[in-house]
Amino acid sequence: MTAETKVNGVNIDQLFSTIDLLKQKPELAKFKFRASNKWLGGTHSRATVKDFYGPGKEDTSRAPVSYDLDEPEVLLGTNQGTNPVEYLLVALSGCITTALVAYAAAKKIHLRGVESRFEGDIDLRGFLGISEEVPVGYQVIRVYFKIDADISDEQKEELLRLGEKYSPVTNTIKSLTPVSVQLEK
Amino acid sequence: MTAETKVNGVNIDQLFSTIDLLKQKPELAKFKFRASNKWLGGTHSRATVKDFYGPGKEDTSRAPVSYDLDEPEVLLGTNQGTNPVEYLLVALSGCITTALVAYAAAKKIHLRGVESRFEGDIDLRGFLGISEEVPVGYQVIRVYFKIDADISDEQKEELLRLGEKYSPVTNTIKSLTPVSVQLEK
Repeated sequence: MTAETKVNGVNIDQLFSTIDLLKQKPELAKFKFRASNKWLGGTHSRATVKDFYGPGKEDTSRAPVSYDLDEPEVLLGTNQGTNPVEYLLVALSGCITTALVAYAAAKKIHLRGVESRFEGDIDLRGFLGISEEVPVGYQVIRVYFKIDADISDEQKEELLRLGEKYSPVTNTIKSLTPVSVQLEK
Repeated sequence: MTAETKVNGVNIDQLFSTIDLLKQKPELAKFKFRASNKWLGGTHSRATVKDFYGPGKEDTSRAPVSYDLDEPEVLLGTNQGTNPVEYLLVALSGCITTALVAYAAAKKIHLRGVESRFEGDIDLRGFLGISEEVPVGYQVIRVYFKIDADISDEQKEELLRLGEKYSPVTNTIKSLTPVSVQLEK
């Protein structure tokens, strides 16, 4: 009998050997991710993602990818890109999905499909400085997942809780993550 | 003498009339932003952004835009997209830039250029469930801004503090933002 090496497209041999390695060498678990941004005028800017650090070395092997950010006209923009708070939901969507799929793979639960929707509430009086009582960021983010697999609703719930618990973006949003902003002269 | 209507590409007449309107009708300040996501296999998923709610109505006028999310091979992926925690930095980058530029426009400070770099530290032992003591999300995010304008360093610092203070993504990350994750049956 041959053991499965890929479940849900995730190489679980690699997953478990990575976990074993990082237990032995925790310094290899330290990653740094990066982006840069250039303002293009008005509310339009362009971000670029390329290199990262980890495990234990700089990785410059990927081609750079750029993302346009802008606002719709009703928010003073020229609609040349998705807006920043929408990109935040994009980030959240991939993160919970990936965590859920990886944990399903580790449990050898075969998934047929995973689809999800994300919605966040913002009161623009925060951004515009009209009221100091109104939060500037999202007041709440609601997430809805559909999981297609031959498992019970309880198992789907359990998987979704793992996806939520082990999603780096979810945890960054839900906790008091420090952001240090400095001027370069 | 004709008053300026656009500074830094931002229509400040529209900005100030929006502020006046939202002071009178705060219900128009309530926006909802959205994304959806479909898993494509392994750590690869695709997010789509289209409609939003606000001011006071659904807006379905924008064309849908899709974003591929994946991991590099060292993180069990197939490198078919930027990863979720990198998209979070993309979101942050556009948000501080836009807030900074808008506040500069309101103060009639003319900017020639704004460039920035973003770096976040993650210890993968959190995501992999190796240690419950290690944060799952970013431990810290560092941001560096260069501002090109005929103003003093003190004014640049002040502008950057406004950009940071009034950036919705920064505030979502720095505060305890609730994320409600539900299973749809």
